[in-house]
Amino acid sequence: MRIHNFAAGPCTLPLEVLEEARDEFVDYHGAGASLIEMSHRSAEYDAVHTEALALARKVAGAPEGFEVLFLQGGATLQFAMVPMNLVGAGGTAAFSITGAWSKKAIADAAHSASTAVAWDGGPEYTRMPSADELVVPGGSRYLHICSNETIGGIRYPEWPDVGMPLVVDMSSEYLSRPIPWDLVDVVFGGVQKNLGPAGMTIVYVRKSVLEAAPDLAAYLSYATHAKG
Amino acid sequence: MRIHNFAAGPCTLPLEVLEEARDEFVDYHGAGASLIEMSHRSAEYDAVHTEALALARKVAGAPEGFEVLFLQGGATLQFAMVPMNLVGAGGTAAFSITGAWSKKAIADAAHSASTAVAWDGGPEYTRMPSADELVVPGGSRYLHICSNETIGGIRYPEWPDVGMPLVVDMSSEYLSRPIPWDLVDVVFGGVQKNLGPAGMTIVYVRKSVLEAAPDLAAYLSYATHAKG
Repeated sequence: MRIHNFAAGPCTLPLEVLEEARDEFVDYHGAGASLIEMSHRSAEYDAVHTEALALARKVAGAPEGFEVLFLQGGATLQFAMVPMNLVGAGGTAAFSITGAWSKKAIADAAHSASTAVAWDGGPEYTRMPSADELVVPGGSRYLHICSNETIGGIRYPEWPDVGMPLVVDMSSEYLSRPIPWDLVDVVFGGVQKNLGPAGMTIVYVRKSVLEAAPDLAAYLSYATHAKG
Repeated sequence: MRIHNFAAGPCTLPLEVLEEARDEFVDYHGAGASLIEMSHRSAEYDAVHTEALALARKVAGAPEGFEVLFLQGGATLQFAMVPMNLVGAGGTAAFSITGAWSKKAIADAAHSASTAVAWDGGPEYTRMPSADELVVPGGSRYLHICSNETIGGIRYPEWPDVGMPLVVDMSSEYLSRPIPWDLVDVVFGGVQKNLGPAGMTIVYVRKSVLEAAPDLAAYLSYATHAKG
């Protein structure tokens, strides 16, 4: 008897995936130890990690010009890390406010950058804006959008091209639609709704962003994670 | 055949713990789903979480005046979060420099606070200082120590009482010795060496610290996590 979880939180996983993880949980491929007891520098773990990175690149269709990062702290930590890495105290990040998640994002960004509201669908948040409706101040570094606001149940039917890089929070619909690589500098989302159990965030970040990033505390710097 | 991992990285786990996790991995207590498929708001998961918090308080002997927080980002993210939450741009954090880990800590703290070196055992790092040797500037908010520097293989035999709150990074010897609750404001460490698999950091933080903390981005604020 299997229960299916239809809730908006963590997702149901394929039974065969759970069974394979269970079967190799105590003794991984005859190594005499669980994978979770092994060093992150071991050949066994490194093979799993490298394959997972390659798959995350492949299923998203991410071009070579993007890094694939596996991070902790959820999409919430990205609300802080994106403006730290892309903007810093001297610049401005613009936001399309379309519900609870974009409101959290702009509030967190305000701790490390100037912020601007390019559109606000409140208080009802019943639809997403068209590209024409988004008024992005000219000096902004990027426009942040939440591509699917789960609480209001609204979604951008088309990607807004505003002549400025997009940062896209895709948590609730991650890898359920193609990512517009030409338009984005950063795409992020927790994996727990569409990709796996809770606990990891995948961030796709354009490599040129890393080169221009300010010096930051180690965990908060995309450059640290890109170095591996 | 079980392999024992003697390396300084992730630890070997008790076989009976691995076996119990394996046995309930696909179907948790007859619920028809894995625990990793369940909502964090479900009764089943909440019971596990609440018991783990209570055990983390009990085994450490943490008094009621401390919060117990389960965080991501490793001890490395704490190198940034501690000065953000305790000091901020206007104050000073002091550090006892005793090896690789305390050097990383002071470098990360410098991004959000002024820093001072209370003692430096370099370049050889062959011993820890006594309390008398630590020269902590009077206006400092706390003294950061790494209680056991794994790379150099040195450890404080006694806790230094310098008349100022300690922040203690205990990653490599977590819960292998009593914590001096009267002397500390924050104790943190990754769990991967002594307590479980890699992926979580336990932070014990004095509740009065939360009350005095500045407003921060959500994930970076201890107050956010204390609210649960």
